[in-house]
Amino acid sequence: MIQLVILGAGNLATHLVDAVLKAPNLQLKQVYNHRPESLKAFENKVQVCSKIEDLANADIYILALKDDAISATARFFENSEALVVHTSGGVEMKVLAHLRNYGVFYPLQTFSRSRAVDFSKIPVCLESNSEKNLDKLKQLAISLQAPIYEVDSQQRKSLHVAAVFVNNFSNHLFSLGAEICKENQLPFEILKPLITETTAKLEELNPREAQTGPALRGDQKTIESHLSQLGGTKNEIYKLLTKSIIEFHGKKL
Amino acid sequence: MIQLVILGAGNLATHLVDAVLKAPNLQLKQVYNHRPESLKAFENKVQVCSKIEDLANADIYILALKDDAISATARFFENSEALVVHTSGGVEMKVLAHLRNYGVFYPLQTFSRSRAVDFSKIPVCLESNSEKNLDKLKQLAISLQAPIYEVDSQQRKSLHVAAVFVNNFSNHLFSLGAEICKENQLPFEILKPLITETTAKLEELNPREAQTGPALRGDQKTIESHLSQLGGTKNEIYKLLTKSIIEFHGKKL
Repeated sequence: MIQLVILGAGNLATHLVDAVLKAPNLQLKQVYNHRPESLKAFENKVQVCSKIEDLANADIYILALKDDAISATARFFENSEALVVHTSGGVEMKVLAHLRNYGVFYPLQTFSRSRAVDFSKIPVCLESNSEKNLDKLKQLAISLQAPIYEVDSQQRKSLHVAAVFVNNFSNHLFSLGAEICKENQLPFEILKPLITETTAKLEELNPREAQTGPALRGDQKTIESHLSQLGGTKNEIYKLLTKSIIEFHGKKL
Repeated sequence: MIQLVILGAGNLATHLVDAVLKAPNLQLKQVYNHRPESLKAFENKVQVCSKIEDLANADIYILALKDDAISATARFFENSEALVVHTSGGVEMKVLAHLRNYGVFYPLQTFSRSRAVDFSKIPVCLESNSEKNLDKLKQLAISLQAPIYEVDSQQRKSLHVAAVFVNNFSNHLFSLGAEICKENQLPFEILKPLITETTAKLEELNPREAQTGPALRGDQKTIESHLSQLGGTKNEIYKLLTKSIIEFHGKKL
């Protein structure tokens, strides 16, 4: 049985708490946050704590905190033998290097509070200062049934950037598509099967093979017609992504 | 029983032929293409024709052709009473206005030859010169079990642009994500659950609500760290989409 304390009360902490409570080999001893009012949602599930001096003993402390808060919070564990990990894609492991046992437990997924997540489908990127601690993190990931990847700090930073491209930026393109629909009295529903198929294709094709459209075809007439319909930032985005597709696929207009 | 001839041999024509052959109320009389070698894949399924003078009689002729070929091919039908439709998102219906009965049958989906499609999940955008012809197109769509939308030429052009944003451009972002993985010795597999969740979220949330990430949070430190890792066009894309997210959500850095 691995004993855990989760520090944080954001989207990741919330989903992690629920997943840990369901996992048979994990015992969640406490959830910590410095703001008592943020702990209200956890009170019925688990012991809560808003004073860091009152933290319970545990094998692993998971700092599911904002990037800026990791370093300051970690200072509290300087004399601890426990394994302390952060969960951030963008923060190097070395911010914890003043501790005895440390690492990173980075679940590569997008978390919204209102939407349930299934950890068995979330790749967890692990890094640690020793093989022994890495094994502990693997046990934790296995208990959550999560796919495991060993990823060093440099790789994780790159992965975090890649995640922005495939998730944040794609979702924003969906927002712009929805806006175009609205401006033309069309329901966004009409685009959803296309969006679903865009990602479903990746089961069979890699994205390079799956690419279609006027930029790939070098269809200058359609590109110009589209640009004439777009103003402002949408026009800039259309131009730049068209240029990027042409570059990427080694074609010239 | 609606009798059809499909003109074209590309991805859409190929999938449309298969769907029509399966539909109980539709009879596919012929597939036409001016290049006999492009018809080889159809020979075992249906009568083929490469001379436009030899076209069979039908109720509806579907011009599943490249945008540039629609107008020239349509000239052949100037004295015909049959309903002639094109399938293009970017071409106005009026290019067929010299015909007696005409319209548009635009399936809003991305088609790759190697990937099966299910027409019951493809919104079909219909437009026609008369109510009677529109009804015929509705019957055709119903026979394919496709969801039906009445969409005029201006709306369809906008929809075509929106489709480029949500499909072509998103898929390209997936390509860039895959490239970042490769450059860092990481398998693209690691990003797939995130990509799947990005679109699955839209079942519950609209894309504005589903947005997450450093641009939305105004997290300048992470944005700068990401930009320092990116060169060339990826750097430009990161900057522009970050700017667009901030604009769209009405936030300032």
